[in-house]
Amino acid sequence: MSIHSFHPPVRTLMGPGPSDVNPRILEAMSRPTIGHLDPAFVGMMDEMKVLLRYAFQTTNELTMPVSAPGSAGMEMCFVNLVEPGDKVIVCQNGVFGGRMKENVERCGGTAVMVEDTWGVAVDPAKAEDALKANPDAKILAFVHAETSTGAISDAKTLTELAHQHDCLVIVDAVTSLAGSPLMVSDWDLDATYSGTQKCLSCVPGLSPVSFNQRAIDVITSRKSKVQSWFLDLNLVLGYWGGGAKRAYHHTAPVNTLYGLHEALVVLQEEGIENSWARHQKNHDALRSGLEAMGLSFVVPEGQRLPQLNAVSIPDGVDEAAVRSILLKEYNLEIGAGLGAMAGKIWRIGLMGFASNQTNVQFCLGALDAVLSSMKAPVNSGVAVDAARAVYG
Amino acid sequence: MSIHSFHPPVRTLMGPGPSDVNPRILEAMSRPTIGHLDPAFVGMMDEMKVLLRYAFQTTNELTMPVSAPGSAGMEMCFVNLVEPGDKVIVCQNGVFGGRMKENVERCGGTAVMVEDTWGVAVDPAKAEDALKANPDAKILAFVHAETSTGAISDAKTLTELAHQHDCLVIVDAVTSLAGSPLMVSDWDLDATYSGTQKCLSCVPGLSPVSFNQRAIDVITSRKSKVQSWFLDLNLVLGYWGGGAKRAYHHTAPVNTLYGLHEALVVLQEEGIENSWARHQKNHDALRSGLEAMGLSFVVPEGQRLPQLNAVSIPDGVDEAAVRSILLKEYNLEIGAGLGAMAGKIWRIGLMGFASNQTNVQFCLGALDAVLSSMKAPVNSGVAVDAARAVYG
Repeated sequence: MSIHSFHPPVRTLMGPGPSDVNPRILEAMSRPTIGHLDPAFVGMMDEMKVLLRYAFQTTNELTMPVSAPGSAGMEMCFVNLVEPGDKVIVCQNGVFGGRMKENVERCGGTAVMVEDTWGVAVDPAKAEDALKANPDAKILAFVHAETSTGAISDAKTLTELAHQHDCLVIVDAVTSLAGSPLMVSDWDLDATYSGTQKCLSCVPGLSPVSFNQRAIDVITSRKSKVQSWFLDLNLVLGYWGGGAKRAYHHTAPVNTLYGLHEALVVLQEEGIENSWARHQKNHDALRSGLEAMGLSFVVPEGQRLPQLNAVSIPDGVDEAAVRSILLKEYNLEIGAGLGAMAGKIWRIGLMGFASNQTNVQFCLGALDAVLSSMKAPVNSGVAVDAARAVYG
Repeated sequence: MSIHSFHPPVRTLMGPGPSDVNPRILEAMSRPTIGHLDPAFVGMMDEMKVLLRYAFQTTNELTMPVSAPGSAGMEMCFVNLVEPGDKVIVCQNGVFGGRMKENVERCGGTAVMVEDTWGVAVDPAKAEDALKANPDAKILAFVHAETSTGAISDAKTLTELAHQHDCLVIVDAVTSLAGSPLMVSDWDLDATYSGTQKCLSCVPGLSPVSFNQRAIDVITSRKSKVQSWFLDLNLVLGYWGGGAKRAYHHTAPVNTLYGLHEALVVLQEEGIENSWARHQKNHDALRSGLEAMGLSFVVPEGQRLPQLNAVSIPDGVDEAAVRSILLKEYNLEIGAGLGAMAGKIWRIGLMGFASNQTNVQFCLGALDAVLSSMKAPVNSGVAVDAARAVYG
């Protein structure tokens, strides 16, 4: 046996996440490890809660990172809020709504599915119909930014409807956080979870979450114990909650938290409105280039996420071969379709640090060259200029 | 709001973990992030499985890291193996046996507790009595190396007894992995979980696990779905299992996995037997120094973990004040007691990279100086020499 140190290739990450990580964050990760109960670390945790509240645009006290990826953040929301026998209305317009259904059922709840076409926003009218038809429902769950299709839904309206029908909302904001306006307190979202490897440009492995008082009241008045020990908020709060005395629950992922702290400092320095505007600008440029090539978007205009661009594969093109050449010859990663979209779309991410003019032009140039070399039915040689024009 | 980059103090970590992280591992963590489905990353994952099998001393195909801390590795074992109504015998001789009980009950199982005094090994005779008295038990769960007390239990004998009574074992090897002999295949352990922040000297955040065929057969013949989506082995295996085609389950914590890969390469370079011997040697030296000071161990000789030294607090000493001075004046972290041991012991870790002669002598010198300055009833000025004599 002789396995050596692993030195990864240097890629440009323009898939659905992880996105390019800011070198400041990589450097922060390599700072010396200290104990998870060290007073210096506890001070860092307090700062992180403040920074996360800014990112989520919330005053929710209970705002913190879960020590595991976004899927665990999703599960934390469901296992704490859903009890056996509870009815949850799940709006599905992509892969992640399906995962929500799995979560509801594994908590012993009943999922009422509201299906929308993959690639469009959740239809508030359908959600309202389901709320009316299910007066015993406890929760409405939906995905704010569907990473599998690139569609953004109207979280504010969906939440208003849910509250009118005495339902809480659980909101998947994995891909929206820091890339698109997400106003947790203004919109009164009850339970929101996200990830670190999308528009925060941090490494994957943590899941920021935020719960408002309405959600906390439901959790603290549960009849049954939370089925997960690791994700039980009553226990996690002993560590992440306020107060000088932190109780040991689990050993926090210290260095990854250094990375998230740095990512949030970077966001604060830029200003979240500027971050949203930057994502929009680079999306506009990428769109201009893609459309000049003759490629089309899956999601209707007005429902598109600037940070996740789902593009239809041109006729006759071997989409996997294109991605493979981009990776091998350009060290450029773009994403494949997921679930029902597999083989039908590419997903081009412009997330966080990766959302910049260099990447837009590099990606368009590379895609243009590869498609042209394959004699794909596209207009070649015009995409980069079209994008550049947007920057002025 | 103006929060700045966080620069941690440089500590020497001689508590119950995280332990000092080898700078090679910190550097590895800061390498460029790549996608979790990148062919280069998949190759790294395959190497990691080989390296983890070496660390666990096993041929178990199903050996991989869970993308969350040790508590989640524990939960993965329980949620996959325990179904509602199952009876699990849990041997408790410290904090972590209690956590196992919580896990059993949250899976809908019944925990039969076998209690041993905190600070001694699990008594196989008591375990055997419980196995005889509960012929319907499905699993025997125990902690190989109790981090809360520093006692090591006889995992081989306990497993033989369990198998004689048609029970599987779930084994907590969080603190033993790489520090004390742990022979997963020779001892035929069915489900074993560990952590990265102890004797592997990696950062916290991952939980290596290993399952043998007997455990897999139980999991694949479950009547009910695993209650956790995130920890469902049937799903996780689509990503970590063999085969060139990896299915997306969750986004792996890419950079932390770089760190674990590097930690395992370091272990391979040293040789695991040499790692065990090093832990023993440094423990012998620390013990010699502590005993020369007049301090005594909690755990009887022959049941002591070399990597976790639980020491009784001398009469009249404010133990928290001692730890606080060590931290402030020496940047040295040692651990407090946990649970029933709180206020009664210190836990001095000599784990992984932190298990070295420099740390042993530094810790003894610092402890000696602080206790002497507090006029504690100890022999001052002799500890460091006593330790040095062990090294010859």
